[in-house]
Amino acid sequence: MSVPAETVLHRDDLHGSLGSPAMGSINFLNEVMGRFPDAISFAPGAPHTSFFGEIDVARHTARYLRHLEEERGLKPEQAERLLYQYGPSRGLINDLVTHALRTDQGIDVPQDSVVITVGCQEAMLLTLRALVASPTDLVAVVNPCFVGLSGAAAVLGVDLVAVDDTDDGIGFAQLDEVCRAARTAGRRIRALYVAPDFSNPSGGFLSLEARHRLIAVAEREDFLLLEDNAYAFTADQPGALPPLKALPGGERVVHLGTFAKVCMPGARVGYVVADQRVRHASGRTGLLADELATLKSMVTVNTSPLSQAVIGGILLEHQGSLASVVSAKAALYQRNLRLLLDALDRSLGPGTGAPAGVSWNRPRGGFFVRVRLPVPADERLLERSAREFGVLWTPMSHFYLGDGGDRQLRLACSYLDPDTIEEGIGRLTRFLHAVCP
Amino acid sequence: MSVPAETVLHRDDLHGSLGSPAMGSINFLNEVMGRFPDAISFAPGAPHTSFFGEIDVARHTARYLRHLEEERGLKPEQAERLLYQYGPSRGLINDLVTHALRTDQGIDVPQDSVVITVGCQEAMLLTLRALVASPTDLVAVVNPCFVGLSGAAAVLGVDLVAVDDTDDGIGFAQLDEVCRAARTAGRRIRALYVAPDFSNPSGGFLSLEARHRLIAVAEREDFLLLEDNAYAFTADQPGALPPLKALPGGERVVHLGTFAKVCMPGARVGYVVADQRVRHASGRTGLLADELATLKSMVTVNTSPLSQAVIGGILLEHQGSLASVVSAKAALYQRNLRLLLDALDRSLGPGTGAPAGVSWNRPRGGFFVRVRLPVPADERLLERSAREFGVLWTPMSHFYLGDGGDRQLRLACSYLDPDTIEEGIGRLTRFLHAVCP
Repeated sequence: MSVPAETVLHRDDLHGSLGSPAMGSINFLNEVMGRFPDAISFAPGAPHTSFFGEIDVARHTARYLRHLEEERGLKPEQAERLLYQYGPSRGLINDLVTHALRTDQGIDVPQDSVVITVGCQEAMLLTLRALVASPTDLVAVVNPCFVGLSGAAAVLGVDLVAVDDTDDGIGFAQLDEVCRAARTAGRRIRALYVAPDFSNPSGGFLSLEARHRLIAVAEREDFLLLEDNAYAFTADQPGALPPLKALPGGERVVHLGTFAKVCMPGARVGYVVADQRVRHASGRTGLLADELATLKSMVTVNTSPLSQAVIGGILLEHQGSLASVVSAKAALYQRNLRLLLDALDRSLGPGTGAPAGVSWNRPRGGFFVRVRLPVPADERLLERSAREFGVLWTPMSHFYLGDGGDRQLRLACSYLDPDTIEEGIGRLTRFLHAVCP
Repeated sequence: MSVPAETVLHRDDLHGSLGSPAMGSINFLNEVMGRFPDAISFAPGAPHTSFFGEIDVARHTARYLRHLEEERGLKPEQAERLLYQYGPSRGLINDLVTHALRTDQGIDVPQDSVVITVGCQEAMLLTLRALVASPTDLVAVVNPCFVGLSGAAAVLGVDLVAVDDTDDGIGFAQLDEVCRAARTAGRRIRALYVAPDFSNPSGGFLSLEARHRLIAVAEREDFLLLEDNAYAFTADQPGALPPLKALPGGERVVHLGTFAKVCMPGARVGYVVADQRVRHASGRTGLLADELATLKSMVTVNTSPLSQAVIGGILLEHQGSLASVVSAKAALYQRNLRLLLDALDRSLGPGTGAPAGVSWNRPRGGFFVRVRLPVPADERLLERSAREFGVLWTPMSHFYLGDGGDRQLRLACSYLDPDTIEEGIGRLTRFLHAVCP
């Protein structure tokens, strides 16, 4: 019996420019998590599973089918077939999503300006692809940056340029400088990607003043803002700010959202609001959303109508607003964040004898806290943290374009329970005492 | 009250190279179909809806959950949570898909060489992206070509080169010439995309001899074959041939498939088999599927576990083989194709007094027949066909890279009923008598 022949490809011959360092690092992280299954992991920013008990796929689907029958006058079997068939690239539940955006976030757009996507990831990919028309086009990102955005850019070969985040959101002076430098180099910044509400990875937040100012810069420099709304729902309501898209000048904003955290990751349903007008050479105008829907037809054709029906059903069960769904979840994530910050204070705060140079930010929402260390938080240190101390975290350098973040780590608290957070920070404290000078 | 400001983008500033003519044409086609809803349409290659009655999402999902409990020792609530949570980019039902490929198609690969994708569309996008590492890389396609493939290439900026189809599949002399020309130009053909079984749009079919010969050319010229398997299931069983992937030399083949036609379009579940070894600079080897899974994490993260559960449940209900599911469907599509060809013979065949220069091919499977006309089958003619004769078809030029196919049209018969096919060909006949000289 002969051994079957193999076709051997050389790695260097595959997906050339896909040098996204984050992806190699995430593989490493997954591998470490696999090797130390008993470690407490502050690494994944996964939703808490306690809410999964509320999900009832059959009930949600039935609710959406009833909506189709009532709104579109379909017979039951026609409605059902709509879920089994292909569907429009633009989506099926655009009416419901638009309604929720209006009710919950003050974003008032027509439903044809929304495209339903396979998670927010596809929304980012489509938007980058639409806006970048030539190799001289650039997209700016607040750095550190969500790996989904930098990953999509790597897939498409889109060049990114970094603007560092600051304690009040974004370095405006550096942003001006980046714009000037791009112009000088004959390049054009098409958009700036920003998560104004508790960004992943650093928990960054833009004040209302910073939001207005950012829109003004976008107008002056003639680029769009790509607003990632994924964690806005975790805000403590009295302190919540309107999204960029709902502010004056919001027509410059492409708004990116997901139902993964609010409803259910497994549905893989996200959306993009792109109500910008596009003028064709013929003089005819359309919407940026039309362009995104065309692109989507070449990436995934359409988002599963089944998945959309589940999300649609959840929206309908709550009278089209996610406010009540969100408030219970926001409370849990707020609680977890408070527990995490309290535990850090008690173990590593002033007067605890903690190693010098350990500090962290205090986001008022989201899933993530950024911790600064006096030593490099690299893969070697992560491995030791897992093996000797049973605690995992994410090196912040994963999220940086270029160098940066090498003495920082990201802690996620979203899916953990109170005891685990407490015990995990205990382990982290022992680890830091061991490795910091 | 002031009129809200609008941000106006210029079309020329959007997704630069996305000149895929097919997409504009498909928009036109959809628009015509919308304007003439009572026309009989041979345009969409949609699955027949008569099989949708078999679908029972709740039952399929429950069956898959039971499998998870039995195979992985999960408790019922753990299994259910797997469907609500994110999941591996590689997929959940890889074991079942691999089993079905082995049983039904003689494709024997380990399950880690399969990636479950959002339809076959995403599988094509990921594969093109993985294989094209530099601007000098090329992908060859059999021309005319499925618009999903040329669309994915347009999204990624991948250069395609055409090899015309012939009555026995593909022009081998032209393929040799294309390879030579690429080498001379310092370019590298990384892969050839081919649908050996009843291609969309032209119903092309490769004989067994042509399959062996194509693999030999791929070995000699050192490229991969991207085999699109979407319509193979429609073959009349005695005449069915093994897929390229199951033939000697099949390790050169990346096999692309979908459950859209066989099970349910709305699930949006496809797959790619990529068992080629990849050698990293370090000497470590992995699978091409690993690279595709990494790319997928940057396009859609993962395929909806809910959708995968539905397909998994269908596979399990049929003891892991789709042979029985497929045979009833193949019979219906075979019947429709026969009715279409018979009606063409009776109305437009020899001795009917049909206009000179009207002819068609006789595929033995698939959804499509190619008709040649003595006049240009362009959008103007389509509009007239719809308005005056109440019959729709697809201009074949939509599917051609570059010029070509301007006097051809595509007829799809997949989703029509016998009476409609008969009446539709009657209308087409009257139309052709009116427009042909």
